[in-house]
Amino acid sequence: MDKPERIPRTRQNDYSREAIEERAAFVTRKTGADLETVSSYTIDPETTRGNIENFIGTVQVPLGVAGPLRLNGEHAQGDFYVPLATTEGTLVASYNRGMRVITECGGARTTVVRHSMQRAPVFVLGDALQARDFGEWLDRNIDAIRTAAEATTSIGKLTHIEQYPIANMLYTRFCFTTGDAAGQNMTGKAAFAACEWIREQHPQHPEYHLSGGLDTDKKHSAINTIQTRGKRVIAEFTLQREVARDMLRIDTEALFRYRQIAMAGTQQAGAVYSGAHAANGIAALFIATGQDEANVAESHAGITYGQLLENGDYYWAVTLPALICGTYGGGTGLPAQRECLEMLGCYGAGKADKFAEIAAAVVLAGDISLTSAVLSGEWVSSHENLGRNR
Amino acid sequence: MDKPERIPRTRQNDYSREAIEERAAFVTRKTGADLETVSSYTIDPETTRGNIENFIGTVQVPLGVAGPLRLNGEHAQGDFYVPLATTEGTLVASYNRGMRVITECGGARTTVVRHSMQRAPVFVLGDALQARDFGEWLDRNIDAIRTAAEATTSIGKLTHIEQYPIANMLYTRFCFTTGDAAGQNMTGKAAFAACEWIREQHPQHPEYHLSGGLDTDKKHSAINTIQTRGKRVIAEFTLQREVARDMLRIDTEALFRYRQIAMAGTQQAGAVYSGAHAANGIAALFIATGQDEANVAESHAGITYGQLLENGDYYWAVTLPALICGTYGGGTGLPAQRECLEMLGCYGAGKADKFAEIAAAVVLAGDISLTSAVLSGEWVSSHENLGRNR
Amino acid sequence: MDKPERIPRTRQNDYSREAIEERAAFVTRKTGADLETVSSYTIDPETTRGNIENFIGTVQVPLGVAGPLRLNGEHAQGDFYVPLATTEGTLVASYNRGMRVITECGGARTTVVRHSMQRAPVFVLGDALQARDFGEWLDRNIDAIRTAAEATTSIGKLTHIEQYPIANMLYTRFCFTTGDAAGQNMTGKAAFAACEWIREQHPQHPEYHLSGGLDTDKKHSAINTIQTRGKRVIAEFTLQREVARDMLRIDTEALFRYRQIAMAGTQQAGAVYSGAHAANGIAALFIATGQDEANVAESHAGITYGQLLENGDYYWAVTLPALICGTYGGGTGLPAQRECLEMLGCYGAGKADKFAEIAAAVVLAGDISLTSAVLSGEWVSSHENLGRNR
Amino acid sequence: MDKPERIPRTRQNDYSREAIEERAAFVTRKTGADLETVSSYTIDPETTRGNIENFIGTVQVPLGVAGPLRLNGEHAQGDFYVPLATTEGTLVASYNRGMRVITECGGARTTVVRHSMQRAPVFVLGDALQARDFGEWLDRNIDAIRTAAEATTSIGKLTHIEQYPIANMLYTRFCFTTGDAAGQNMTGKAAFAACEWIREQHPQHPEYHLSGGLDTDKKHSAINTIQTRGKRVIAEFTLQREVARDMLRIDTEALFRYRQIAMAGTQQAGAVYSGAHAANGIAALFIATGQDEANVAESHAGITYGQLLENGDYYWAVTLPALICGTYGGGTGLPAQRECLEMLGCYGAGKADKFAEIAAAVVLAGDISLTSAVLSGEWVSSHENLGRNR
Repeated sequence: MDKPERIPRTRQNDYSREAIEERAAFVTRKTGADLETVSSYTIDPETTRGNIENFIGTVQVPLGVAGPLRLNGEHAQGDFYVPLATTEGTLVASYNRGMRVITECGGARTTVVRHSMQRAPVFVLGDALQARDFGEWLDRNIDAIRTAAEATTSIGKLTHIEQYPIANMLYTRFCFTTGDAAGQNMTGKAAFAACEWIREQHPQHPEYHLSGGLDTDKKHSAINTIQTRGKRVIAEFTLQREVARDMLRIDTEALFRYRQIAMAGTQQAGAVYSGAHAANGIAALFIATGQDEANVAESHAGITYGQLLENGDYYWAVTLPALICGTYGGGTGLPAQRECLEMLGCYGAGKADKFAEIAAAVVLAGDISLTSAVLSGEWVSSHENLGRNR
Repeated sequence: MDKPERIPRTRQNDYSREAIEERAAFVTRKTGADLETVSSYTIDPETTRGNIENFIGTVQVPLGVAGPLRLNGEHAQGDFYVPLATTEGTLVASYNRGMRVITECGGARTTVVRHSMQRAPVFVLGDALQARDFGEWLDRNIDAIRTAAEATTSIGKLTHIEQYPIANMLYTRFCFTTGDAAGQNMTGKAAFAACEWIREQHPQHPEYHLSGGLDTDKKHSAINTIQTRGKRVIAEFTLQREVARDMLRIDTEALFRYRQIAMAGTQQAGAVYSGAHAANGIAALFIATGQDEANVAESHAGITYGQLLENGDYYWAVTLPALICGTYGGGTGLPAQRECLEMLGCYGAGKADKFAEIAAAVVLAGDISLTSAVLSGEWVSSHENLGRNR
Repeated sequence: MDKPERIPRTRQNDYSREAIEERAAFVTRKTGADLETVSSYTIDPETTRGNIENFIGTVQVPLGVAGPLRLNGEHAQGDFYVPLATTEGTLVASYNRGMRVITECGGARTTVVRHSMQRAPVFVLGDALQARDFGEWLDRNIDAIRTAAEATTSIGKLTHIEQYPIANMLYTRFCFTTGDAAGQNMTGKAAFAACEWIREQHPQHPEYHLSGGLDTDKKHSAINTIQTRGKRVIAEFTLQREVARDMLRIDTEALFRYRQIAMAGTQQAGAVYSGAHAANGIAALFIATGQDEANVAESHAGITYGQLLENGDYYWAVTLPALICGTYGGGTGLPAQRECLEMLGCYGAGKADKFAEIAAAVVLAGDISLTSAVLSGEWVSSHENLGRNR
Repeated sequence: MDKPERIPRTRQNDYSREAIEERAAFVTRKTGADLETVSSYTIDPETTRGNIENFIGTVQVPLGVAGPLRLNGEHAQGDFYVPLATTEGTLVASYNRGMRVITECGGARTTVVRHSMQRAPVFVLGDALQARDFGEWLDRNIDAIRTAAEATTSIGKLTHIEQYPIANMLYTRFCFTTGDAAGQNMTGKAAFAACEWIREQHPQHPEYHLSGGLDTDKKHSAINTIQTRGKRVIAEFTLQREVARDMLRIDTEALFRYRQIAMAGTQQAGAVYSGAHAANGIAALFIATGQDEANVAESHAGITYGQLLENGDYYWAVTLPALICGTYGGGTGLPAQRECLEMLGCYGAGKADKFAEIAAAVVLAGDISLTSAVLSGEWVSSHENLGRNR
């Protein structure tokens, strides 16, 4: 087979209209695809520098709005109208319904209970005993290591280093706080600087790799669920018996009974979220607001907890142990994405916890609606009404 | 607190420019957000009917192209230029590099080895023995159940029903093939019809819920990894020793040694993907092509396998057990998304397996690049060069 | 360091008193340990042939009896007095209490809902497509494969072969029923014969290993929990509100509320059993009755399910998906172990399901007692009273 | 059905010959089982007080000896002859072979890298924010909490309290070191005292349960694998190429190749041990030495790691993250069990780490032998020769 042609790039300005058009024309020539819509973007390509390479246009993802969502959170307080970008019919309507139920019941409480972003270098030593000793050396030198790490960033702070010895190696998790950024790049740079300092200073100059696999970046893992990656955030509210009956056509006793059934199923399946569908809301909110979509993998894990109260109301809480999001950096500054963050009052500095609280409440809203639809037998019919796009 | 205002909707045509503008103006009034970019969409809102509710505009996600990616697959054959929509700097460049390596080595082989989409009703019986007997009744009546299910769909086929008895219940997985659609709605409707038939025909008219939690829709689970949800697809290629050295600046022996380290880390972490970062490529490809983004949660799980060959080349395979995708339905028909599918020759009927094969090869390409960057120490520096958007 | 001395063995009769005494004397000489109790066994060493090598005596494990345990099972019916061998103070007393509660409430229902013992060969092919084709060849030749497997055993039956393709390999699970034996050896031999037949008959004569790791013998695994290894067995009963109050000093509402708390904890922990302590009862029953102790690893996994009934009673069920046990072969024929099986009317042919049902009910009894002790605050004090052996 | 008869007990001395004989006679009368062997114990029943209730005799478990096992551990140094109590034919022979291989290669290195035993109370607060605040209160009062906990024990030390907020609750793990005892009872008592202090001192007097499910006592869990329960211990050695060929009839390259296959299988299965069969050796060693057999559930988890070295030797390490054992308390003082500990020089104070190191090396030995048997095709034939007890 012949050598295939490479995609055109230019050293001058790869984000110029000319470079972009040349590339799009190349794609059309090679694939036959007409890129009319892709090419009819209305943003300035220069704004995408640092967010994309080989730019050929944009994909316009439909954006809906759901709400109002009333929150009495630690950081998120008030009534929110939530932007959700998705191509899945029924999704916005379903979340919208859940939000109205929360609001009708007086709102949800939300709290961020932990912050931690990691890089996870592994150090290879001569044997297990040396690896354990090396771990003790890390403990003794934590201040100097912190200095080395934090020299690379004005925001990131190295809180501690977790150690997991395996064979002749020390696997670590360098845990940081990262302000309003999700922080994967910031922590990568800081951990790299710290590791270089360690390699230089430690008498054995140990070989290391910047990732030993415990990060676990862009993958769900038990360690993220247990030790937190990103933010651990909780949303809770009390579903009033009458609201359940009137707005959701369900009975709280039946809801509680179903909870037992769903949890046994979750355990049998080995599912990493015990509620209905965290990933739907998270994905739609993440696309709208310029979050890293791949982080849905980590962020969708969580624990649903419910108790029927004596008065027949139902306490309902969602705990997300590894929600990864930011209001600074990444895609948050792109034009439409920034507008979506502004809809939530979440653009820029000091807003990441507020955003995380809203995200958790969105998940709660979606679970209210879908769980109720399964219980009331309306699940299929609602999709028939709203999701038919053919 | 006062009753908050509801989002305006109209019974006439909620996708008319007027209705949309009224809604956007409402959002601006309530939140203060200027929705200029969101509102400057270039697609016909009517095309989004069935994909979104409460439409207020679009989010333009930057689209890059990576390739060529040479495939010698069962369904995907030739050189592909792959659309990736993302806001994460470096991502397209990194996948692009991996694709060029695959192509330089003669291409990747790809195969879809299993198809199965599920709904998972649970039936509540009087006790465990009755539940087991009920399961045997299902087996005896499978033909009639199939008829009831398939009456609702021209495409979906009920292949079999898996049974998982717990306590006095029978949890099931109704397994379907769904043609070129991802098929969640199709199978929901078919399973509902089957369950209604069962409830009517079985002497005990058992109570059931359409989801008992084993689906496990929009969540990673062990059962999906073991039993497949969507497609199980494999991409494999042989990395030539010289190509590794020249294009990736790594040595295949070092790569193999690192594989051992990464797998021990993966196991310690309890991570559900044992390679580098499947979710990145899947998320970007999914946004570009109108797949359901939430399915990143299920689709990113997988098994990386490598062997150093006697000649120093390195056999590298990625197995994705639960890739959920389609080339029909959902967001695949939206204008830009359709164009991206057409870039791959994957729009419409008979293309879903081809698309799945491409997706698996994309994952392989991304892992080649990131793993090599970690090994060669270029991981941080490449992000510094390409990912700085502030 | 010098070459250390090897343990004496004799080709004549390694189970003769002389050979045993020589070995014990050697151990005493090398280690200084006086083996008086170990050597004061009262069984005929000849009976241990096939159960142990390098015999030097026995370990006398204290045996207690708990009960009566009333069962209305499919196979286990009547009042049972259960032998439990353990060194953990409080264990027998606690299970005894739980059994009395079950009995007071009219007994437990028990059912075996699935049987399957596996060996899991892996076949290495040229690529993934060949591996998938090979899987189809297996399907077409299942009858001949079954014949080859079953030629090695009068009891084992090959029910089906599960296939899990990874990379260029086909991982399989050869699933058998094994009568009253646990069946690991029987299935090993049968699978080996089947694999040899396959290697000979298939045109590619594929390389294989008798274990590809999916068995998963002597280890807990998700696949065992989902697909069953050994027996899947369920025990259920209804705890009467008054019995809970009088015998356990707890309230069923509090019990149900605690269930929610414990399940959230189980999920957070990633624990493979969602009840209190299945392993305690299983281990003690297994030692008493000559089961393979290592199978506690697989057998202790399970799902606890509870519902508060309208009258305030509490439905409680334990589902054990991978209970591995037998009443024939292994240690079941040893003198004391056989006596313990006879206490349960479970020695020999046709008794394995009965035994499995009793085991599940024992687990249920233990969970009743420990859960109630945690709830009533008596957990620590009971151990203080009964478990102080120093 | 009539009320069944209760098992006879006496308030005088339930461990007297008379009481025991009466109980055994009762069992024989009710079940028809002749308890001749059970009753022919040679230990003084008084020694079992604190280890068992409703004593009726003993189960004599066959004891074999394997070795020599040469260790160059941190605590275990020299040549060991290891007592293994089991009813599984081939087991002792197989471990014996592995030990001889280790010894031939110069011995294994062993190290205990972490100690931690937990109780895991859960505290129920008003909402998530209060639960987080309560966690900060715990941090501020850790010294007083430690004092309260340690007042109950002369040995246990409260090292720290881990916090896992879910919904309106704070799940905790109170982590202790416990000297030479496994420590479950010691930590139960200490945690109870600490919790009572907390409930009294905290302004809200929060409701708590002594177990919230994170312990996770007698069950495998991800949290134990990640955070350690008991001891985290590593055994490692280098298998010489020639020894592999001569004693195991395998080639180290083939072994390394098989390692890749087995790890992919392990991941697919979701198995919690990635080597061959840790549970076999642990169970047999635990029965022999009076450990709590139920802890096989937690202790058998682990990570196998291997690398082929440049000279063709093979580095092989086993990491057990949650090995639960002791040389003091529990069943360790029973006559035969104590003799077995003395065989290892592990009875009594200051020996627990030594014992843990031996246990890890035993696991390594068993994996060497079984893995090699699978590879060389001798697995089935060895069982045929040694394990035929019918």
